[in-house]
Amino acid sequence: MSAPSGGGKTSLSRELIAQSLYLEGSVSVTTRPPRPGEKDSVDYYFVTLERFEQLQKSGGLLESVRLFDNWYGTPLKHLQEKVANGIDVICTLDWNGLCQLKQVMPDQVVSIFLLPPSFSEIRKRLVQRNQDTMEVVEKRMAEFYLEISRWKAYDYIVVNENFMEALSDLQHIICAQRLRRSYCSEFVSSLVEQL
Amino acid sequence: MSAPSGGGKTSLSRELIAQSLYLEGSVSVTTRPPRPGEKDSVDYYFVTLERFEQLQKSGGLLESVRLFDNWYGTPLKHLQEKVANGIDVICTLDWNGLCQLKQVMPDQVVSIFLLPPSFSEIRKRLVQRNQDTMEVVEKRMAEFYLEISRWKAYDYIVVNENFMEALSDLQHIICAQRLRRSYCSEFVSSLVEQL
Repeated sequence: MSAPSGGGKTSLSRELIAQSLYLEGSVSVTTRPPRPGEKDSVDYYFVTLERFEQLQKSGGLLESVRLFDNWYGTPLKHLQEKVANGIDVICTLDWNGLCQLKQVMPDQVVSIFLLPPSFSEIRKRLVQRNQDTMEVVEKRMAEFYLEISRWKAYDYIVVNENFMEALSDLQHIICAQRLRRSYCSEFVSSLVEQL
Repeated sequence: MSAPSGGGKTSLSRELIAQSLYLEGSVSVTTRPPRPGEKDSVDYYFVTLERFEQLQKSGGLLESVRLFDNWYGTPLKHLQEKVANGIDVICTLDWNGLCQLKQVMPDQVVSIFLLPPSFSEIRKRLVQRNQDTMEVVEKRMAEFYLEISRWKAYDYIVVNENFMEALSDLQHIICAQRLRRSYCSEFVSSLVEQL
């Protein structure tokens, strides 16, 4: 799932994970300092730049991306273990991260672009969140302009105008995905064998 | 949507149409006589073989299929009008009908194969329905064996073990489909134009 900052991806992911069976969040590794209330190993694995570079070099990260002055990455081993155990994992990535993910797991990625109803709305949310300086808000807006130009790389588009509606949209996508032919092939094969 | 006879496609379609906005059923043309309670222009357009052949020749049918001694067809004009008006239409077709539909509207077809939980279950339902002789039941079972061998032509697989669960599965598919990138391109384009 990709979204601009303030697009609601964190709160929507949390709620989806709280409600769904066989669905977990991906805990990213980051070099950015924790925000108030964020916990290590739950919200992120908070690491030093040295440790991050070590992970990168050893192939321990599925993808890594620099956002402003901080690095973010997805630990590959955790993700593979979960998927092998039949657990779907929500990763919040930007377009670049999505491309890297698709290279490693081409047949197992479903991509969703979470959009605000308008540009003025996204700026308002960033300002209201009150976590960033105006300079960072403008940087994030510029980042978003670039991101949205890549919307054609995504399978699904969800507009987050209303939290509950966006949540329900995401649930529909997850449930429908599990009904796709490729997900059900084991069951159908066993039925055909009864013939 | 394809399903074996007794797979529940008629009752599930009816319930989906009753619940959903912008969703209608396709009324087929048939040469078979009405069953008790079936109404002309609602359940089917009941026509003579002569009229059916006339429609076929004039290109008025999207697809036509012979099942046992009767012909079934989907009137093309109705379907195109509805789709042009933003209405999604549920067509219940067999594999052959699906292939013909995909040829005429390649980018607008989402295919769902509705399966019984087991073969013994489908035979039981056909016998309980009490509409057909045992000979017809066996004919329908043979038809089903052929149909199920083509399951790889379908986008989604729904198992109808429990009516309410199958209904909910179908609703997830319909809702998710409307969130696909191709459905949302108008909105995203208008958002990008604000840049």
